[in-house]
Amino acid sequence: MTERAHAERLDAADPLRGLRAAFEIPEPEPIYLDGNSLGRLPKATLERLSALVRDDWGGRVVRGWDAWMELPVRVGDALAAGFLGARPGEVIVSDSTTVNLYRLAVAALQARPGRRVVLAAADEFPTDRYVLGGLAEARGLELRLLETDPVEGVAVGDVATALGPDVALVCLSHVNYRSGALADMAAITAAVQGAGAMMLWDLSHAVGAVPIDLNGAGAQLAVGCTYKYLNGGPGAPAFLYVRRELQDVLRQPIQGWFGQRDQFAMGHPYDPQPGIGHFLTGTPSVLGLVAIEAGVEVLARAGIEALRAKSTALTELVIALWRAWLEPLGFTLGSPADPARRGGHVALRHPDAYRIDRALVERANVVPDFRAPDRIRLAPVAAYTRFTEVWDAMDRLRRLVEAGERVALDPARSRVT
Amino acid sequence: MTERAHAERLDAADPLRGLRAAFEIPEPEPIYLDGNSLGRLPKATLERLSALVRDDWGGRVVRGWDAWMELPVRVGDALAAGFLGARPGEVIVSDSTTVNLYRLAVAALQARPGRRVVLAAADEFPTDRYVLGGLAEARGLELRLLETDPVEGVAVGDVATALGPDVALVCLSHVNYRSGALADMAAITAAVQGAGAMMLWDLSHAVGAVPIDLNGAGAQLAVGCTYKYLNGGPGAPAFLYVRRELQDVLRQPIQGWFGQRDQFAMGHPYDPQPGIGHFLTGTPSVLGLVAIEAGVEVLARAGIEALRAKSTALTELVIALWRAWLEPLGFTLGSPADPARRGGHVALRHPDAYRIDRALVERANVVPDFRAPDRIRLAPVAAYTRFTEVWDAMDRLRRLVEAGERVALDPARSRVT
Repeated sequence: MTERAHAERLDAADPLRGLRAAFEIPEPEPIYLDGNSLGRLPKATLERLSALVRDDWGGRVVRGWDAWMELPVRVGDALAAGFLGARPGEVIVSDSTTVNLYRLAVAALQARPGRRVVLAAADEFPTDRYVLGGLAEARGLELRLLETDPVEGVAVGDVATALGPDVALVCLSHVNYRSGALADMAAITAAVQGAGAMMLWDLSHAVGAVPIDLNGAGAQLAVGCTYKYLNGGPGAPAFLYVRRELQDVLRQPIQGWFGQRDQFAMGHPYDPQPGIGHFLTGTPSVLGLVAIEAGVEVLARAGIEALRAKSTALTELVIALWRAWLEPLGFTLGSPADPARRGGHVALRHPDAYRIDRALVERANVVPDFRAPDRIRLAPVAAYTRFTEVWDAMDRLRRLVEAGERVALDPARSRVT
Repeated sequence: MTERAHAERLDAADPLRGLRAAFEIPEPEPIYLDGNSLGRLPKATLERLSALVRDDWGGRVVRGWDAWMELPVRVGDALAAGFLGARPGEVIVSDSTTVNLYRLAVAALQARPGRRVVLAAADEFPTDRYVLGGLAEARGLELRLLETDPVEGVAVGDVATALGPDVALVCLSHVNYRSGALADMAAITAAVQGAGAMMLWDLSHAVGAVPIDLNGAGAQLAVGCTYKYLNGGPGAPAFLYVRRELQDVLRQPIQGWFGQRDQFAMGHPYDPQPGIGHFLTGTPSVLGLVAIEAGVEVLARAGIEALRAKSTALTELVIALWRAWLEPLGFTLGSPADPARRGGHVALRHPDAYRIDRALVERANVVPDFRAPDRIRLAPVAAYTRFTEVWDAMDRLRRLVEAGERVALDPARSRVT
């Protein structure tokens, strides 16, 4: 299993091996293991964007809106069907994850007046903590941060013991951004909603990597990002999900003209569209939406079950090689060893992780990513990463650590996303 | 002046006539007079976007962020210097106009506790009214809508008489989206701020068409759109301006990770960046920012004073031909006749405006735009519209009205932006 020939056999037997050709991968190329920060460019996206810009914007100009108006719902429906386990009309693509999290959190808090606690994980992704903290402060509520296992992530019990009649809203990530731990969506949703609180899932590190069944879990609200495993491009618009039965009960706070019924009558006063439509705000990013749609089509053809199967095999190989080569060198596993409890990336912890990360980039031609204080995240992506790339990256990592290579610490270069 | 030869002479003498070549204008092409809804595609944008997608996203993937991080401030600084009369570090490009208006309005209201009235014009652009109405309702405030002259727009006196110790915030457009009336920014700002209220300008229909001097007017807050006269593309991100002296006094409500000091330390708790930086929210749209930057460079080379001079000459020609040809046919002028009181577009009113608008598009190969209930808006854009195009469009409009041509009313086709 530690032989390169083993990885070569896995590549040869990989039913998704042809999918790599759908992505722009210039040669010679570093081994790219940071697709959970920013996914690669699908070739179809480059073509679709060029056509959009040249033919639709350039050629049709404002008349392009005849087709563009439906993009937020149409791309949302594609995500719903292919990746989220949601019904048509339950997902739109709009704004950023940060803005959507804010909007759905406000809507949820308004639906639970009198309850004064917001729960999140202490190691939740920063923007989620900051947004919720700001909301809690502005409304005189308390943001309570749950201490959870740094490797295994949030357990149902962690949440259940914190629930009570005072809890208005629980916000958690399905896949933790550091450890990759996969939370039990169905069980946690049932516990939270059973206690009368609203549950809001952040799917940013999960969507496109693991199968998600929002309807099956009875989930009320979710947000997520499209520029990681969905390959939507840098700063691509995010999505939001609102369970159908809640859409006309909840009010989101940013009442924009794209949420108005009969938008171009431009009437008085605000009269929200029925359904998911009133969760739209301002003019949506057409370039961003078209880029997402092109990338999502490529992945949807492969299917999330096949992507997940390969992703699991890739991270299993990372862990096998960690155990054989890196554990003896002082690395610990920062992710669940059980693949059923893990998303699409693996965290390896080392006291000198930052300097090792820089050496990997600068001397070994591998692009991992670093998360303070001591984690190297490796995300081999099912759509375009080869098993031999995983083997080569782990081999280079082992060699440079054995050789004692580090890069001098320069905080100005710590900018990674 | 009503001869086509006059328009030909104006084209020949136009110092900006070469600028049209900087835009994608396929032939044969309708006469496009809707650049105040969606501006045309600059050729440089197509090239810049293709290079960004292929070389930066495709080639460098996540490492592209080394350069992209500074885009919101860098593009904001270009807008500040070239079009807004603001200092470096006072403008960022981020989110949509709707979201930015919401954020700055919340910040302003928090800075004026105890005051319970928000003022806006009754014919303000819909998203502004909806956002402010939602905010007022959520906070138990009153949105008071000022009746203003439908042609001449908001006057200083309209605002001054409505001010009082209860007014927290006044939000107005610099150029009205229907009439094109240009508000006196300096006088209104002085009146509002003199009465202790906060002033928030919406520059969407002004920026790139008329010179704006936010610093000179003493303006506190502004937002605006980049997809009209700035040619940023469909759904391009918007900008916001916060006067330097207020940046560390105000708190905007959506505390995202891009607003955090030392963002990639991902620390606890939220610790806002000093200056304009904490007005950033989630991951910015890189595609949108790059497109805006390319278009803004093209316009900045021409200079806003030259653009304004040509824009005024173009709308003066529209009005001269209206007076000669269309007033006798029952059209009234829906815009100020004084060019100093007018932005970049002209509204012509007619009881049958909608059906005439459709006939213009479908039978005369002219793209104007329609605003309910009775306005045809004509926006000849200095950067790319020829005087002869204005003449030809007005001539076709006259002929089809003289011939009694209308298009049967079909509300499903009333979708215009």
